[in-house]
Amino acid sequence: MNQDYIIPNEWSIIEEGYNDSRIKSSESLFSIGNGAMGQRANFEEKYSGETFQGSYIAGVYYPDKTRVGWWKNGYPEYFAKVLNAPNWIGINVFVNDIQLDLFTCKKVVDFRRELNMKEGWLSRSFKATLINDITVKVETKRFLSIDLDEVGAIEYNVTPISGDVEITFQPYLDSGIHNEDSNWDDQFWNTTNVTENSSQAFIEAHTMKTNFHTCTFMESKLFINGKEQNSIPKTESSETKVSFYYPAHVKANETYTIHKFGGYVVDRNHDTNQLVTAAKNTLKLAVDLGFSNLLDQQKQAWANIWEMADITIDGDVKAQQGIRFNIMQLNHTYLGKDARLNIGPKGFTGEKYGGSTYWDTEAYCLPFYMATKNQEVAKSLLTYRYNQLDKAIENAESLGFTNGAALYPMVTMNGEECHNEWEITFEEIHRNGAIAFAIFNYYRFTNDYSYIPEKGLEVLIGIARFWHQRVNFSEDKQKYVMLGVTGPNEYENNINNNWYTNYIAKWCIDYALENIEKVKEEYASDFKRIVEKVNISEAELSSWRKVAENMYFPYSEKHEVFLQQDGFLDKDLVTVENLDKSQRPINQKWSWDRILRSPYIKQADVLQGFYFFEDHFSTEELEKHFDFYEPFTVHESSLSPCVHSIQAAKLGRMEQAYTFYLRTSRLDLDDYNKEVEEGLHITSMAGTWMSIVEGFGGMRIQEDKLSFTPQIPSQWEGYSFKVNFRNQVLKVIVNQGKTHFEVDGNKELQIIVNGEKVTISPNNLVTV
Amino acid sequence: MNQDYIIPNEWSIIEEGYNDSRIKSSESLFSIGNGAMGQRANFEEKYSGETFQGSYIAGVYYPDKTRVGWWKNGYPEYFAKVLNAPNWIGINVFVNDIQLDLFTCKKVVDFRRELNMKEGWLSRSFKATLINDITVKVETKRFLSIDLDEVGAIEYNVTPISGDVEITFQPYLDSGIHNEDSNWDDQFWNTTNVTENSSQAFIEAHTMKTNFHTCTFMESKLFINGKEQNSIPKTESSETKVSFYYPAHVKANETYTIHKFGGYVVDRNHDTNQLVTAAKNTLKLAVDLGFSNLLDQQKQAWANIWEMADITIDGDVKAQQGIRFNIMQLNHTYLGKDARLNIGPKGFTGEKYGGSTYWDTEAYCLPFYMATKNQEVAKSLLTYRYNQLDKAIENAESLGFTNGAALYPMVTMNGEECHNEWEITFEEIHRNGAIAFAIFNYYRFTNDYSYIPEKGLEVLIGIARFWHQRVNFSEDKQKYVMLGVTGPNEYENNINNNWYTNYIAKWCIDYALENIEKVKEEYASDFKRIVEKVNISEAELSSWRKVAENMYFPYSEKHEVFLQQDGFLDKDLVTVENLDKSQRPINQKWSWDRILRSPYIKQADVLQGFYFFEDHFSTEELEKHFDFYEPFTVHESSLSPCVHSIQAAKLGRMEQAYTFYLRTSRLDLDDYNKEVEEGLHITSMAGTWMSIVEGFGGMRIQEDKLSFTPQIPSQWEGYSFKVNFRNQVLKVIVNQGKTHFEVDGNKELQIIVNGEKVTISPNNLVTV
Repeated sequence: MNQDYIIPNEWSIIEEGYNDSRIKSSESLFSIGNGAMGQRANFEEKYSGETFQGSYIAGVYYPDKTRVGWWKNGYPEYFAKVLNAPNWIGINVFVNDIQLDLFTCKKVVDFRRELNMKEGWLSRSFKATLINDITVKVETKRFLSIDLDEVGAIEYNVTPISGDVEITFQPYLDSGIHNEDSNWDDQFWNTTNVTENSSQAFIEAHTMKTNFHTCTFMESKLFINGKEQNSIPKTESSETKVSFYYPAHVKANETYTIHKFGGYVVDRNHDTNQLVTAAKNTLKLAVDLGFSNLLDQQKQAWANIWEMADITIDGDVKAQQGIRFNIMQLNHTYLGKDARLNIGPKGFTGEKYGGSTYWDTEAYCLPFYMATKNQEVAKSLLTYRYNQLDKAIENAESLGFTNGAALYPMVTMNGEECHNEWEITFEEIHRNGAIAFAIFNYYRFTNDYSYIPEKGLEVLIGIARFWHQRVNFSEDKQKYVMLGVTGPNEYENNINNNWYTNYIAKWCIDYALENIEKVKEEYASDFKRIVEKVNISEAELSSWRKVAENMYFPYSEKHEVFLQQDGFLDKDLVTVENLDKSQRPINQKWSWDRILRSPYIKQADVLQGFYFFEDHFSTEELEKHFDFYEPFTVHESSLSPCVHSIQAAKLGRMEQAYTFYLRTSRLDLDDYNKEVEEGLHITSMAGTWMSIVEGFGGMRIQEDKLSFTPQIPSQWEGYSFKVNFRNQVLKVIVNQGKTHFEVDGNKELQIIVNGEKVTISPNNLVTV
Repeated sequence: MNQDYIIPNEWSIIEEGYNDSRIKSSESLFSIGNGAMGQRANFEEKYSGETFQGSYIAGVYYPDKTRVGWWKNGYPEYFAKVLNAPNWIGINVFVNDIQLDLFTCKKVVDFRRELNMKEGWLSRSFKATLINDITVKVETKRFLSIDLDEVGAIEYNVTPISGDVEITFQPYLDSGIHNEDSNWDDQFWNTTNVTENSSQAFIEAHTMKTNFHTCTFMESKLFINGKEQNSIPKTESSETKVSFYYPAHVKANETYTIHKFGGYVVDRNHDTNQLVTAAKNTLKLAVDLGFSNLLDQQKQAWANIWEMADITIDGDVKAQQGIRFNIMQLNHTYLGKDARLNIGPKGFTGEKYGGSTYWDTEAYCLPFYMATKNQEVAKSLLTYRYNQLDKAIENAESLGFTNGAALYPMVTMNGEECHNEWEITFEEIHRNGAIAFAIFNYYRFTNDYSYIPEKGLEVLIGIARFWHQRVNFSEDKQKYVMLGVTGPNEYENNINNNWYTNYIAKWCIDYALENIEKVKEEYASDFKRIVEKVNISEAELSSWRKVAENMYFPYSEKHEVFLQQDGFLDKDLVTVENLDKSQRPINQKWSWDRILRSPYIKQADVLQGFYFFEDHFSTEELEKHFDFYEPFTVHESSLSPCVHSIQAAKLGRMEQAYTFYLRTSRLDLDDYNKEVEEGLHITSMAGTWMSIVEGFGGMRIQEDKLSFTPQIPSQWEGYSFKVNFRNQVLKVIVNQGKTHFEVDGNKELQIIVNGEKVTISPNNLVTV
């Protein structure tokens, strides 16, 4: 199902021609969102073919009862699921009493769908001949407002072509929806109230168990050839649905238009008892503006996003389309306005992976948001974990840890663990390291130390305590070892001394110790508060030190590489190149045991450590490890190619770097994994951004400055990106042979280019 | 819930006093069976309290759709489940229209339950005062006929004590039953026909999916004070139930009796279309004999079983009761008449563990059946696996193996794998070794080589091929290694080079090679047939040899022991003795990851290898390994204590051996694991037998002879057992200080006692 139907275009995702076999894929690819809600590109009108309905509200989830074959002690009771929320986009369309339904139409021509990335809207147009032989032209436009983020707006135009007809729009709200991914076919929503007045309707419903109260709402305006129609609609309502009927006689080539405004208000943001009032207020704002003004605001909001986040690529329209698609979808998913929210692996584009937050956020997404938004956004992502520290401590306690040791969950919505495979839930503990690393990374990039005494240090202490307890002393090795873990390479489970995990564990302890020292000296009152809270002693710290200083790292003298784990060299070390292509992807072709004992690596593992801690190793060491591990890497995780692309670029292997880049940037658009219909790979999209900025651009922080070693794929004429570095915006334009830098504002910026210090004066293009 | 309500008695399991909190435990403990069917000790009359209903037909199962959290390639589609079969024991009892139900009675006194092990029947008696204040005395007796193994019989007596009453017996059949353990609440039975005539009733039903057709049947006889009553009953039937009403006026102190005959005929043994006819034939045989004669037959059948299988223990009634309970339950479960059947871990006493056959059969049960039955029974157990060889080859193919490699399933009913935890299903592959070992063990004990050229060699070849492909050559170690396995100690998963697995793998290859050689030389026509079938070449055999000769065995020079697996010495080696008691059992107190990285051993692992291959090692080596591993062993498997008991005895540590013995022999009677209500641990009961015969008695095969090194726990006055060795029955009587041997028949038998050859002449007690 590799797709080639998306038409290359610099600023738009475009599909032409109606094909019911790709409806679900397109529903994913044309998804829209505004950080507070998002939805798949489901049709407004009825569609009786195969479809995957999804409209999601940020932070609203359902704790689906865990399903396992054999229960193990410590498994969580539930897996939080993003859940399909009540439908507000629905508009049934009847033409002379026959319902418009593309799946049953006699003919559909000129079908075109466009996701306009520049302006932030989704449109669709087609000519359909219904079973009553009437042909109508339909044009729709839809967007979720960035500014009024509880509201979406739809313009739906129907123009009869073959003669005068009676057209009825039936806009509706429907809370009688279901989730694709439900473990026990539970009911997820309880609808408590369905109300309407002459122009507005409201459905109040709350999620079962979690009791998120919501009000879904709508209001519509009708026009014929642009002239507003003021009829009082007939209404119809049931326990979970309410609809209005707007019939009209429409002459041939006249256009009947409905503007539908709808969306959700949630008790996370409003008083539970005032949801209908809140909905009315929101509707008033939107309706008073009208579709056209709201759309203008939308274009401006997206212009602002692109002003900072855009990456241009010259000479390769597919690459340009790919990178913008990634940047747009990241902004659909998370805008950083709300520290209670985070970045789900599928954003608002599907249900898979259910829970919202993985280590993806810290390892892959943070750099993107740090560089393309103001630094409060990145701080929000850190604060999210700080706010869940107590739950991380409880989680560790449930696994037998004590004394405030914190283990952050593998997957979570509210800080509680959701995942339930023992080899992941209990053993893929390196995630804890990424959360500490993000604190380090934030400070390195922003130079804002305030977060650490205020919040970060408590997190670092909890994490250090976990690692300190998680190792044990091996009498045999006379070192501290870490047994029974799963590293970033999930194709090995329950291994001993995963180098990456051991390394980041030691680093976490060292970094916590360093910051305890610094906070003690420079933030005495914070230090006093923290010590009182976490009750830490010199004896404990010295015990940490002993572990950090005596951590075991498996190493091969022969290969001069750190070993991914103790047993790696016992494997049958046949490289991927020599593996029969018919055997791939191994995660579909091989039984799990065979994968586990193979040398094949799902995503960067040792190399992930070399990515995080690049400064700790020489380029020669990186090269040795890259040449040892990459040949065994099957890149069957969407998070794999970006790290390898960055490292290949660092090693000056631009062809290889470009190959990896292609794989990550159009992963969904070209449906590499044949699963795009389930939703998009949102978190790996941030990896694509890193591939350009850190990979090709070679951006690093060195000596407290931005540093670049710009390179460019031979296939491109040029590319550019911007970075918000400590409140100065630097634009970087790389062409074949030279690089230009420009800094906004009125302050000069010193940077490092290819190892040389360069001063960029404001508003002055500097070419290197 | 440690039980102390079972009254010590040499030949009976007795419970006195009615207590509704122990109903489910007693339903397990008083279970009965005849090898072809079995049932929990559910009451015949209605019981509205908590109960676990179970009546099971050997070989009739349901493939319950697998339930997992995260599907892995290679998982089986279903887990075969023993399933609760239609109820034929039910007899509702009404006294003046009030239904007898012990849970609602005003008073229950003199409640007594007895499972008479000597004679093979279950009885119950009590006086109950119903809510209408009428008091009746009830006495019941029930057995499943060994001789007519499709039939069970019940005698149910009611004697009114407080005055004349109207009593109605309502014997019924009911196929509207359910299973406790169902993954998806599927319907398991489809009832197709409910028929009755004036005295008999039949329910035809088949299992869903597997389509085992059965006919459940009943016929009753009524008596007052022993005088047969010939009334025509009123009948009542529905889609899944049929019952007869036998009302009678019964005077005070008169006894109203029903003899109910019932059971199952199955299309495994009869023509599908002739099941009702078969049921009628069976009923005729039983009813013509009558309850009393059938019971006499039963007593004789059990006398025959005990004649061969009994173990006596003098001076310790609880030990005596315990060992007989084990022997009886093994005989309830499997009598060896049908090579399609095998020994389920819970026999016919519960649903847990679902599938029928585990490696328990070969590793633990075979020795018991070899020594206490004629050798055809043991051969049936081997043939069971031979008949499933094709499925084992398919199973291996589904995991990527080729060329006729066979992997026997972890759990099976029909040869297909049922289990679905990757760390067990795909990795606990040592089970394959036990199946080969059983062939060796059978030949060693019986001297019947014929099985190997006829059937066994094909099994050995399939297994050797599996091991040959399952290892890989480690460049690093320059040896063949086996990565990613779970050994007998299921508290370690996905480990590398489990010594036990590597050792038995090498042994399997060697043993297959040895037998290929022998069959080639001595059974030329069999050899030709086999070679044509399995297509084996000298080149393949030489490749096997290379693996066997270069297998890697982890070893510690320092401790002078083979290591359970590569990483064992890195563990935090705190012995069980030094583990806080509040932390045990660890399988209830610890999360799974913590168990995995601990040094604690669930059941014999390295020591299992020393048990199987005792001759390969010196006693000093055994002692070193025992002293190294036993202190880390938590014995949280019912299969653990017996092996350790045997080895402790071998090392002359009789106190320790006795402690282990106690733990195994009354595991269920004293409910060590607080779970007896789920059913009995049938397969470990064979381990109990081994603890006495191989442990205390020290029985081995040496130089082709039975050999003994008799010891006796200081707590006992004496014990005795019998062994059927190559069609000669040897009785061994061990007292404090001396041992007596006696051989049946007219042939002398040479044995070895404490290393010395001793000749036992027939029918002559020889004292050593």
